Amino acid sequence: MAKVYLVGAGPGDPDLLTLKAYRLLREAPVVLYDRLVDGRILSLITGKKVDVGKREGESGKQETIHRLLLHYARAFPYVVRLKGGDPFVLGRGGEEALFLATHGIEVEVVPGVSSILATGLPLTHRGLSSGFAVVSGVLEDGGYPDLRAFAQVPTLVVLMGVKRRAWIAKELIRLGRRPDEPTLFVMEATTPRESRVPATLEDVAEGKVEVAAPAVWVIGKVVEVFGILQKTPQAWALAEV
Amino acid sequence: MAKVYLVGAGPGDPDLLTLKAYRLLREAPVVLYDRLVDGRILSLITGKKVDVGKREGESGKQETIHRLLLHYARAFPYVVRLKGGDPFVLGRGGEEALFLATHGIEVEVVPGVSSILATGLPLTHRGLSSGFAVVSGVLEDGGYPDLRAFAQVPTLVVLMGVKRRAWIAKELIRLGRRPDEPTLFVMEATTPRESRVPATLEDVAEGKVEVAAPAVWVIGKVVEVFGILQKTPQAWALAEV
Repeated sequence: MAKVYLVGAGPGDPDLLTLKAYRLLREAPVVLYDRLVDGRILSLITGKKVDVGKREGESGKQETIHRLLLHYARAFPYVVRLKGGDPFVLGRGGEEALFLATHGIEVEVVPGVSSILATGLPLTHRGLSSGFAVVSGVLEDGGYPDLRAFAQVPTLVVLMGVKRRAWIAKELIRLGRRPDEPTLFVMEATTPRESRVPATLEDVAEGKVEVAAPAVWVIGKVVEVFGILQKTPQAWALAEV
Repeated sequence: MAKVYLVGAGPGDPDLLTLKAYRLLREAPVVLYDRLVDGRILSLITGKKVDVGKREGESGKQETIHRLLLHYARAFPYVVRLKGGDPFVLGRGGEEALFLATHGIEVEVVPGVSSILATGLPLTHRGLSSGFAVVSGVLEDGGYPDLRAFAQVPTLVVLMGVKRRAWIAKELIRLGRRPDEPTLFVMEATTPRESRVPATLEDVAEGKVEVAAPAVWVIGKVVEVFGILQKTPQAWALAEV
């Protein structure tokens, strides 16, 4: 039976690939990848590389990707489908797995380090946050998310939210979050180009904050506490306070 | 300066360690680990192994772990602190990092594949779930979590919730979730001992569901859709429907 490995590429640093993902990339006869995957990771691929072209928040191309997956799954002994972060966190991996399974293709999922885990901020912290939520700023059809169910969670992580950041911040304030709540945008985490932009929810709502997509946007008190820690990529030491 | 690597061990399968975690485990002079980390991963360690003894939901021992970390960080060139899953998802990694930083120890975080990513269920899915939340069934002081902020999120993942599953299910129904909502307990995911117990929220609330801790408990419609897919560890094929 034809087989597709649905593989998470992790947040960017090739060193954060899993052993299994690394081996599959080195050995696979063909890899279908999104445009968001880091170039250093793509350079590990020895087989055929197929750019399926998906960018942040892009909709409408999913059917094309399904057709390409089916085509390659039938033409090669097996296929690696490489997705940024983890395949099952806002990556439409479930849709791809379901589509392939209904066409008789076996699917094996290789989870990866989601970008939500690579910001250097703990998502939970004693006394501050007993849990967290993750929400997309863009629905699969391009629509705006309903944030009501997410607005009160202590730590809220927004993915694909950069373009709509002012709308999201306004909506969260309207739904009861404090305007002076600290937030942090983390761009290209775990890569040499990593950068971080702190901002209050209110400043984001008022359009005062410049950020480039894609970014992981963390909203909540964990940002405040861990703002006292100076951060080089993935490393912490106490800043002068 | 003394240095501690705070390293995620992933969900269980050693093949799901990151390249960086693997290398650190092989080379570190000393590794402090929790009891929940898989034995096959512990067998990779070549240096000194220190069991800090933490089990699921255990409180009160955190100060002891802090003291041990400080002791070893001062006695060895560097230390690996190994935690199940990802160090920053309900692992009290933030507390350990903060404690070490305030004692002049550099901390480098190596994120891992959280157990929430290893259930074989997509946490988001077009039309079903635009986001998800993760909450602990046990607060750091042993207390019960306030579930109000989490109750309406489309996909809810509960960690350390097995012992209190009936209470959690009742509370979620009281807060508005449907009693017939599908849920799935996943035990020892990505290991040869992986097992899965499906149950409605109501059956869990009524104490009808037998599960052994630790488990990742997924609540929401994604369970329903992906129940039609038969699952061997990490692999899917369409079941007879």
